[in-house]
Amino acid sequence: MSDPSTAKSPADSVGGRGEFALIEAITGRLPQGAEVSVPPGDDAAVVLVDRTPIVVTTDVLVAGVHFRTDWSGADDIGRRAAAASLADLVAMGADPVALVVALTAPRSTDAAWVLRIADGLRDEAALTGASVVGGDLSSGETVSVAVTGIGGLGGRAPVLRSGAIAGDQVAVAGRLGWAEAGLAVLTRGFRSPRALVEAYRRPEVPYEAALAAATSGVHAMCDVSDGLVADLGHVAASSDVQIDIESALVAIGEPVAAVAAAYGSDPLPWVLAGGHDHALVGAFAADAVLPDGFSRIGSVKERPRSSTGDRGEPLVTVDGELWSGPAGHRHFAG
Amino acid sequence: MSDPSTAKSPADSVGGRGEFALIEAITGRLPQGAEVSVPPGDDAAVVLVDRTPIVVTTDVLVAGVHFRTDWSGADDIGRRAAAASLADLVAMGADPVALVVALTAPRSTDAAWVLRIADGLRDEAALTGASVVGGDLSSGETVSVAVTGIGGLGGRAPVLRSGAIAGDQVAVAGRLGWAEAGLAVLTRGFRSPRALVEAYRRPEVPYEAALAAATSGVHAMCDVSDGLVADLGHVAASSDVQIDIESALVAIGEPVAAVAAAYGSDPLPWVLAGGHDHALVGAFAADAVLPDGFSRIGSVKERPRSSTGDRGEPLVTVDGELWSGPAGHRHFAG
Repeated sequence: MSDPSTAKSPADSVGGRGEFALIEAITGRLPQGAEVSVPPGDDAAVVLVDRTPIVVTTDVLVAGVHFRTDWSGADDIGRRAAAASLADLVAMGADPVALVVALTAPRSTDAAWVLRIADGLRDEAALTGASVVGGDLSSGETVSVAVTGIGGLGGRAPVLRSGAIAGDQVAVAGRLGWAEAGLAVLTRGFRSPRALVEAYRRPEVPYEAALAAATSGVHAMCDVSDGLVADLGHVAASSDVQIDIESALVAIGEPVAAVAAAYGSDPLPWVLAGGHDHALVGAFAADAVLPDGFSRIGSVKERPRSSTGDRGEPLVTVDGELWSGPAGHRHFAG
Repeated sequence: MSDPSTAKSPADSVGGRGEFALIEAITGRLPQGAEVSVPPGDDAAVVLVDRTPIVVTTDVLVAGVHFRTDWSGADDIGRRAAAASLADLVAMGADPVALVVALTAPRSTDAAWVLRIADGLRDEAALTGASVVGGDLSSGETVSVAVTGIGGLGGRAPVLRSGAIAGDQVAVAGRLGWAEAGLAVLTRGFRSPRALVEAYRRPEVPYEAALAAATSGVHAMCDVSDGLVADLGHVAASSDVQIDIESALVAIGEPVAAVAAAYGSDPLPWVLAGGHDHALVGAFAADAVLPDGFSRIGSVKERPRSSTGDRGEPLVTVDGELWSGPAGHRHFAG
């Protein structure tokens, strides 16, 4: 008997449908109760527990898809897994409080290596004041680390993707393109420049800047995990606006530029479409003083309407034009 | 180069160390912040988010370890994954509010099959009034479903494993041994009795009874996921008591007894050590009227001290004697 979980044709498979389409199909089947104040579709959900808004998000990292055990140390893997959830929390303007972790690993895995994953989770959580409060561990053919983060809003409203307003400044905190350049270095079999390889292994998430943005009234914010153009596309779609990135304002890190030159590559696709860095991008009022760590990279425009109303206009432009490069990061085996 | 994640000797491996020892080692390395009011070690953790206690727990189910895709339908897998977390929440006396799910599946997996997992998660959550509020989806060699549940206490104190007092009645709600008997049936290549196979595929967790226990002042409670003797052992150790199970009081379901007779097996090991059913077991005051759904199966005693104080006495006895059968359930490939 064939395995009932296997697709009969590639078009019907998870790979054929694609992650985003499948998540959308799943979400469409999930009714949301009265306690859900921000449903699936933003960086994190917000639910009311005993009338207190709780921000919750989950991310899973899988060996061979999101990391390679010969490229990243166990502590790096733990840090990156924690950072994925913590970045989603701060992108909602939440103070991270706790992480729980579900870890699978083959029975042959080195127990000390697993402990170092836990150390990485702990140390990344500590950067935000959060504790790792629980977990589950199971054998399984593949190493995977699923991290759920929960946080609180301290009486503030959550920062949504949908709050950007025409005229806003778009600003970014954190690195763009460093991790993608580091991945390019590793893919070519090199281990340097070390700063880029380290950036790939262990993101430096601008947690403080994100919380400063939240308390200073940022209109919209999101974590750059899919790539700047793709993630700003989510903000633009949710806010019903268009966002223009001014490429001259987007900082290209010195080692990113150097490696691009050495490889004869254009660094801009890494910067505009690279994932992994977990930068934060926000839309701030036109007259706002940007919080420390944020730099302006563009602006929010009215969304143009074609006369036929077909909405074929780009959500995101670069220097006023449709960006023809890759919009978002793809995992190397995903 | 050898994979740095692989143990050099079996004794150093995840399988060699064992799940419980490794979780203990991990937990020992995790400092708990001031907002953590119940640290790892109970059915779930409790953290204060903006001064509101939030109950949080995570469980992962892995294909080939916790389920087989030829034995369980996708909706059953979703239900069971949700039930594992929901049972932990109600065991703490919490009202489940939300689940988030991290799912991994090979790219060749049938997308419709994945949607049915989501349906199962949704339908099980709905039994408790909880919503599935978010998730992540990744390709990976193995199907795995990691579910995190969060819930609230409505002003009540959490129900811990550590609250049992000598003289308490021990009572159970839900089924014992049904799922284990169902697993024995499937393992032998049969598909009936159907009630047992269904019990294995889809636990019937006594959510309402657990919440009734929580509101009626149960002293201690836990989810029977490892097996009755093993889980009561956790209660006894946490509460520093001894628990005696009276085997004559433990209901052996009619189909469980019938299958045991047919296989020439003793049903008691299934009932006392079987996992998967997610029954709830609690310690109630000696004079308490048990909530609907709970039946008395034993009592809490002072923990005997040997003259040497070596604490070698059993935490759990059956009819006053050390139980010599298996204490807890082992997953078939875990």
